[in-house]
Amino acid sequence: MPEYVVPTARRRRGRPRAGEPSARDDIVDAAVAEFADLGYDGATIRGIAARAGVDSALVHHYFGTKADLFGHTIGAPMRPDVDIPSMLGGPRDVLGERIVRYVLEAWERPEVQKRGVVLLRSAIGNKLATPLLAGFLSRELLGRIADALETPDAALRASLVASQIAGLLVARYVLKLPALAAASVDELVARVGPNVQTYLTG
Amino acid sequence: MPEYVVPTARRRRGRPRAGEPSARDDIVDAAVAEFADLGYDGATIRGIAARAGVDSALVHHYFGTKADLFGHTIGAPMRPDVDIPSMLGGPRDVLGERIVRYVLEAWERPEVQKRGVVLLRSAIGNKLATPLLAGFLSRELLGRIADALETPDAALRASLVASQIAGLLVARYVLKLPALAAASVDELVARVGPNVQTYLTG
Repeated sequence: MPEYVVPTARRRRGRPRAGEPSARDDIVDAAVAEFADLGYDGATIRGIAARAGVDSALVHHYFGTKADLFGHTIGAPMRPDVDIPSMLGGPRDVLGERIVRYVLEAWERPEVQKRGVVLLRSAIGNKLATPLLAGFLSRELLGRIADALETPDAALRASLVASQIAGLLVARYVLKLPALAAASVDELVARVGPNVQTYLTG
Repeated sequence: MPEYVVPTARRRRGRPRAGEPSARDDIVDAAVAEFADLGYDGATIRGIAARAGVDSALVHHYFGTKADLFGHTIGAPMRPDVDIPSMLGGPRDVLGERIVRYVLEAWERPEVQKRGVVLLRSAIGNKLATPLLAGFLSRELLGRIADALETPDAALRASLVASQIAGLLVARYVLKLPALAAASVDELVARVGPNVQTYLTG
């Protein structure tokens, strides 16, 4: 399988050929770059199309509005639909550690971290984007975790986990608080994992 | 002492009289409203001055640049310089609960919540504003807490506390995750306080 190549405007001048498999991915990559550079408010479908080297009409065709496209950038390239059930299937007494390690190891990958920081900045910074992140969290993460817990207060427990994970990501990767930015993944798993476990089963 | 009255443009047409005690407060209130409505990027000194009913020159005179003014809106009307030392002086084994209760009870007050949500949205959403919040946290909160802990890993412990508190505020007041938004302060103090305590002394 050929290695993934970041598209350039030159490669994609005009409409892509029908059936070209990566046009959607190229547009999502371009959207992440546009949101990162200009913020949610400043980003435009026209600008995203130009970065991807496609017509604006194709972006609308695949993804609808700017809000729809932003929604598509959430989560990818993480795969919570696959990974969360896999995590929930392991030993229940160290589930907190597994969740923290899964999230941090994903965010240590530069492409995830860049996209994730854009997502957090856009979703928290913009009133229109906030419900998109809240909806993604509820649908993809909290619901799955709450279902697995099978307790009456499962929704609150799952939401408390989300509060700690979101706060950890903001503090380490957005605010870059020095002591948190310098800590190793292992150190953070050891410190935060047990607290997440307490929320889940304490 | 007269009750504080929200200023109107009519009351403050033109330059305020010299020595008028609340002009600075009026400008900060106007800044909060402007940041809330337009975001950090959209807010202007001119717009803030218009809301406060003063000249732009007076805003510059009191607060300098937009970034400086944003910095002034952080923290107020909480008083961490007074409250944090007072909290740190109480029983050490329930410090986590005290911190969570202090923050949540403050944020339940509408004027604090409105200002706080603006602050979080602006500081996380905008690259120029992020260091202002990170600096405030380090200077006003983390340093004070770390000093009180007197352990070699105090900076990391204090930063982990900040990650949980920031995540709780984002999840409850910005994302408004339903189970978290519906929970009482007492319930959240009981669930989150012990975890904050673990970060501090565990």
